[in-house]
Amino acid sequence: MSNKRTAFFISDGTGITSEALGVSLLKRFDQIEFEKDTLPYVDTIEKAEEVVERINARAEIDGARPIVFDTLVDDDIRKIIASSNALKIDVFGAFLGPLTEELNAKPSEEVGRARIGESSGYEDRMEAINYALHNDDGARTKHYDEADVILIGVSRSGKTPTCLYLAMQYGIRAANYPITEEDIEDQKLPATLKNYREKLFGLTIDPERLSLIRHERKPNSRYATMKQCNYEVEEVELMYRRERLPSMNTTDYSVEEIATRIMVQCNLQRRC
Amino acid sequence: MSNKRTAFFISDGTGITSEALGVSLLKRFDQIEFEKDTLPYVDTIEKAEEVVERINARAEIDGARPIVFDTLVDDDIRKIIASSNALKIDVFGAFLGPLTEELNAKPSEEVGRARIGESSGYEDRMEAINYALHNDDGARTKHYDEADVILIGVSRSGKTPTCLYLAMQYGIRAANYPITEEDIEDQKLPATLKNYREKLFGLTIDPERLSLIRHERKPNSRYATMKQCNYEVEEVELMYRRERLPSMNTTDYSVEEIATRIMVQCNLQRRC
Repeated sequence: MSNKRTAFFISDGTGITSEALGVSLLKRFDQIEFEKDTLPYVDTIEKAEEVVERINARAEIDGARPIVFDTLVDDDIRKIIASSNALKIDVFGAFLGPLTEELNAKPSEEVGRARIGESSGYEDRMEAINYALHNDDGARTKHYDEADVILIGVSRSGKTPTCLYLAMQYGIRAANYPITEEDIEDQKLPATLKNYREKLFGLTIDPERLSLIRHERKPNSRYATMKQCNYEVEEVELMYRRERLPSMNTTDYSVEEIATRIMVQCNLQRRC
Repeated sequence: MSNKRTAFFISDGTGITSEALGVSLLKRFDQIEFEKDTLPYVDTIEKAEEVVERINARAEIDGARPIVFDTLVDDDIRKIIASSNALKIDVFGAFLGPLTEELNAKPSEEVGRARIGESSGYEDRMEAINYALHNDDGARTKHYDEADVILIGVSRSGKTPTCLYLAMQYGIRAANYPITEEDIEDQKLPATLKNYREKLFGLTIDPERLSLIRHERKPNSRYATMKQCNYEVEEVELMYRRERLPSMNTTDYSVEEIATRIMVQCNLQRRC
């Protein structure tokens, strides 16, 4: 049996849900290499028929049938996809039965969409994104009163993407403030942060990885040397302990995970 | 039967996948109001037992058992959750059987994590986020050569969050340029954009919604009046048609959907 397989994630919407589910299921089969293909907006009979051709062509090339994860709402489109030469993981089909019985209600065929500008947290999300953009990298500190959390850490420890993710996914207003060499030499918390102690969350990272990341940005700079990275990380971790700040080492985590762990550790409630 | 029910999304990770899947399934039952509760990092026996208590308490309060969506990997933890008074939608359990058979391989118990700074697109995503931040709102235009796409549109038509989402989800380098009243009065494409015509994508939005969004930002300003919004939207749509630019009306779509539709319409390939 071939050790390379193809997986399709098919949806009449963005495909983000079927892709996320499919990828996390396939990760469990780490002996096999998967070629992945996400097909969003399969919302007409014609598009569905094209997709079937694509799946069947792939089955021939691979010498093994593809795995198809779908979150299609329309029955006619699902039936067409079901006719392809693939293992079908019909995500909605599997669970709508038990839900219909439990809820004693019929699932609608039309899925309501969240509209831009309408509730479903749109304004909260927008505000949080704008907040993150305007309070990035210590640029402004006068709005820290409005922050839900203020991330601190040395340059390139993951502050900016984490703030943006907190805003986008959870509507959380997250500022960030870089701990510089000067701050470290002072051996105390920067003065601007003192009044916001209860909002601070420290990020740290293994010096080896920090050096790699910094070399990507400024190759062969003093900033990227192991010596400098060792020094900054050691001192900043000392600061977190001395000031008794909650903190986490980001080395082994994705941006999604860092953000979600901060939500839990700081007991933050999502705003959208 | 009660028309209010509680849904739990439980995971040993971030819970983002089980929440996304659960929410899209529950949306189909639009007659019922769901109270939603996401519980990430349920990764010990103790936490699982606390969760069971929480579910059972909720069942009593609601007078109906909750719906539980879980993406738990560990069998012992899953068994504990399964003992709660709920309808269990065991997302992994439902599909691992057919996948195991099809792939002729055993699913691993340990799920490999994407580490920050390691491949899995981390660098591409970071670069794309930085690109979006530095090329937002027409701030800089000299890096347009490196853009995968340049979004244009009137103020508050959704450019910035869409650029950030394109970066975060797809690793796409997206710049954005605001079409101002001056640009409109000139009746032609702003000079800076002329050389990048093939990268341009126009956003538009219904004037009523634009006015609402602008009122949130600057209440009672001329900027937010229906007259001004009507004028700007009409002119910018005329510009898209005259210049034959691809475009979309963002009114009825979430940020995720706008971004994914741009990927499809511009035939962009994800970078992460």
